[in-house]
Order: sequence, then structure tokens, then C-alpha cells
Amino acid sequence: MAAGQRIALIVEYNGSAFRGWQSQGQPEVATVQSVLDRALSEVAAAPVTTLCAGRTDAGVHASHQVVHFDAPTGRSLKAWVAGANAKLPSSVAVIWAGAMAADFHARFSATARRYRYILLNQARRSAHLSGLVTLYDQALDEELMHREAQCLLGERDFSAFRAASCQSRTAMRNIHFINVSRRGRLVVVDIQGNAFLHHMVRNIVGVLTAVGSGQAAPGWTQQVLDSRDRTQGGVTARPDGLYLVDVSYPPECGLPNLPPGPSWWEQT
Amino acid sequence: MAAGQRIALIVEYNGSAFRGWQSQGQPEVATVQSVLDRALSEVAAAPVTTLCAGRTDAGVHASHQVVHFDAPTGRSLKAWVAGANAKLPSSVAVIWAGAMAADFHARFSATARRYRYILLNQARRSAHLSGLVTLYDQALDEELMHREAQCLLGERDFSAFRAASCQSRTAMRNIHFINVSRRGRLVVVDIQGNAFLHHMVRNIVGVLTAVGSGQAAPGWTQQVLDSRDRTQGGVTARPDGLYLVDVSYPPECGLPNLPPGPSWWEQT
Repeated sequence: MAAGQRIALIVEYNGSAFRGWQSQGQPEVATVQSVLDRALSEVAAAPVTTLCAGRTDAGVHASHQVVHFDAPTGRSLKAWVAGANAKLPSSVAVIWAGAMAADFHARFSATARRYRYILLNQARRSAHLSGLVTLYDQALDEELMHREAQCLLGERDFSAFRAASCQSRTAMRNIHFINVSRRGRLVVVDIQGNAFLHHMVRNIVGVLTAVGSGQAAPGWTQQVLDSRDRTQGGVTARPDGLYLVDVSYPPECGLPNLPPGPSWWEQT
Repeated sequence: MAAGQRIALIVEYNGSAFRGWQSQGQPEVATVQSVLDRALSEVAAAPVTTLCAGRTDAGVHASHQVVHFDAPTGRSLKAWVAGANAKLPSSVAVIWAGAMAADFHARFSATARRYRYILLNQARRSAHLSGLVTLYDQALDEELMHREAQCLLGERDFSAFRAASCQSRTAMRNIHFINVSRRGRLVVVDIQGNAFLHHMVRNIVGVLTAVGSGQAAPGWTQQVLDSRDRTQGGVTARPDGLYLVDVSYPPECGLPNLPPGPSWWEQT
């Protein structure tokens, strides 16, 4: 690939050790972007700055983050993947690289983002799943949570589910699907939408778990939504259980269809 | 429970951050035993020293380690579990406590130990499974590995599979079962025996993966066993993929039967 080529990467990471995705401009603050940009800059022997599809917060993971950058030097696709992986910490891995059209943009070309939130529904914490799930020690009724969640589908005003810090001009978002299911002791909220407000998935999970555990009455999700008032909502669920698992683009962009992660519980 | 009561605990841990199980007598070296003993000593407000069923090496995990100690002060079983868990790091969790007969001994009463070794059989490393599995990037034939492993069953001289550092007086060990199976991209070696020599499971996995990947011919496991010579064996597989998943005791000891872990891949 010649210099100047626009490159897209699919990136997997464990967010536990990072202060979120976005570089802070302070070298001492480890972010996923800062370690990725540094690794790619070493491969290129020139500065590389990536742009991502969805900025994740501190402690949030991704099995399928998409980024793009313009190659400052000519490198093969294989060299971008293998070279970056050789320089990245074990908590970040590049899983795919592709040559893109010059107008491809990881964020603005994306048509949908998909997240999974994984709750470990048992009394005691797990030493092996520490940081990878959120412990919820009261019994959850996942079928009730699923029914409760369906009122969020379609184009809605999600003002009641946005963080105070959210800088988006509009609170309108379109949810494509939201499925709640159980797999043994894990309860998983699987949600796709065109885009998400700041803390929106975690605030939805906060409301659904309140209903699913009996702390709030069925129908509360609809009431919170209708209120358009963040102060009417529940707690913001912890970042540990949240994964960005897919980003959709028009087929002509040429990104591969991969099964949604995270890989530690999807052994298919 | 009164002071002087012998207590058994079942303990789960992620060994990645520890220099193995055994306390080194140096406070600056973090071992699983050192953090557990410290937590229990805080609960007891008096010194506690535990003895374990199977000392694990640096980087090796457990979903079911068994320890015992004599309570220096009276505490409820619930207090031992909840109190220790409140003081332990997130990588160690006590999952059960029970009052035992005075002659119960975590190591000497045990009749069998069971380990699982988990290989991630794909080309690239996983950011989420870092430290929790061993990456094996060549295709593995798990059915061949299973057939190959069956020659190790029963009472055998495992001299060819013991570490040079092994201090056991005899190399005779009795393997009860060894099963190799695939679950998606994971290949799992599940092995139970009366006891194991130092590095024995990791050395067995080193030989089985050599055969399963085609680097060594079928029948090599039998040849290595028959040689009784460690220099005839393969590499020692990395600690990352190894878990102590069960310890067996006579039923009258009263320990619970729990499904073998690790919990991140056994969601039943």
C-alpha cells in the first residue's frame, strides 16, 4: 500500500487499564488511542493519528472498534497488523486491516453501533472475570428485562438516558434492536442503534436491572423514557461489563462481517 | 465457630499477577498465599497461615484451590468468606468455607487433583483472554491429541515429564483420566490424577501439542513416557493456560461438589 492510502483497522481491547479511548494530549495518561497511535507511528516511522467509530469511556472494552488513518509511509496490510501487534500491550490487538476509499471515515461512514453489556448474576465476585463483567448480586428476571426494553426501539428522544456531560446537539437516537438473554450466570443486554449518547447504554442497563431485580415496577423504563429527564432515571451501570462489539458500514466500504464478541464467551 | 476450629476454604484466583502460591517469606513478593493469609489474619485479628492442596506456580490459576487453617479466634463461616473477600484483591476470591474435623489436611487428605489446560488455537492473540489462555497458532488436531494422551493413564513413572527442580522422592503417579476436546477455538486438556510432579501437566501439554500440530509423530507421547528421561520430552507449556479446577477428598470430609471451572468458559 502506497503512502497516503486510507487504512481501516478493526481493534479489540480490554479497557480496564485505560482512561478510555481518546488521547488526552498528556503522555502520562494511558488511553487506547495513545498506545495504538504510538504503535502505528513506530510501524510507519512517522506520526499516525487514528479516528475511531465510537469513543469508549474509561474501563469500557471493545471486541470490534473501527479506526481509520492515512498511511504516512507505504506498508503492506500485513505489516500494519503484525507490526502494530508486536508493539501493542497484551490488552490491545489489531484483528484486521484493509485499504479503504479516500472518503471512508470510521465515524461518519458508520451506520450503526452494537454494544453488549454483560452482567455476572451471582452473589460473589469472580476472580477470573474481574474487570470483564459487572457483578449483579440480586436475582435478575431476564425475560422481564427483555419485554421492558422493547419500548426503547425506534427513533426516540433519549434525554432521560444521557449523561450530564453529553455534548451531542440532539438526544434523538434510533435503536434497531435490544435483546436481553441469559447464558448460565451471565445476563447479556445486546443493543444496536444508529448512534448512542454519552453513557446511554449504561443508563439503559441501570434502569433495566432495577426492573429486572424488582427494585422498580414493570413499565418504569417507559416512564423514564417519557420523562426526558435524566434525574428520573436509575444508576449508571459500571463500565466493566460494556463492550463495543460491532460497527456497521455500507457494504461498498468493504469491511468484513465478523461474529460479535467478546471472544471469551462466544466460543463459536 | 470457636477458636481452634479447623477451617477449610475453596479459593479461586487469577495467577497472572502472582509469583505462584507459596509465600516466599519476603513481604515484597506477592504470592496468592501471602495475600490470602494477610486477609484472613485481618479477619481473625491474629496471624493465620494456610496450607493448600496443590501449590501452583507463577502465572498458574485456580478455580478450586483448597486450603485449611486453624482459626485463632472465633468467627462464623460467613465472616471468614465475606471478611476475606472484602480484604482480598479482585484477582482472588474465597468461594466457600466449612468447619472440618481436626485431622483434615488440605494436602494430605486429598485423593485427587484435577487440572485444565486451555489453549487458544488461532493465529492472533486475544486482548480479552490475555493471561487466561495460552495462544497456539498452529492448527491442533484435538482428536489425535486425545488418543495420544491415553497411554498416560494409570500408575506410571513420569520421570520424563518432571521438572529438573522437582523434589518429589518418587516419579510414580496415577492418572485417572485425561481428555482432550475442542470448544470453538479453544482446545482443552482436562486431566485428573492422585497427584502431579512439578511442571508435569505443562510438560504433558508440551508433548501433546507437538503431536497435535504435526511437529512430532503419533506415538511420541508413549516414547517420551518410556524413556523416563526429561531431556527426551518437549517444551514446558506456558503457565497462562493452566488451572487447578478440582481437588477430591473422601466424602466424609464434607467438601461440596462444585462444577469444575474456570467460570469464564463454563457458563452452566
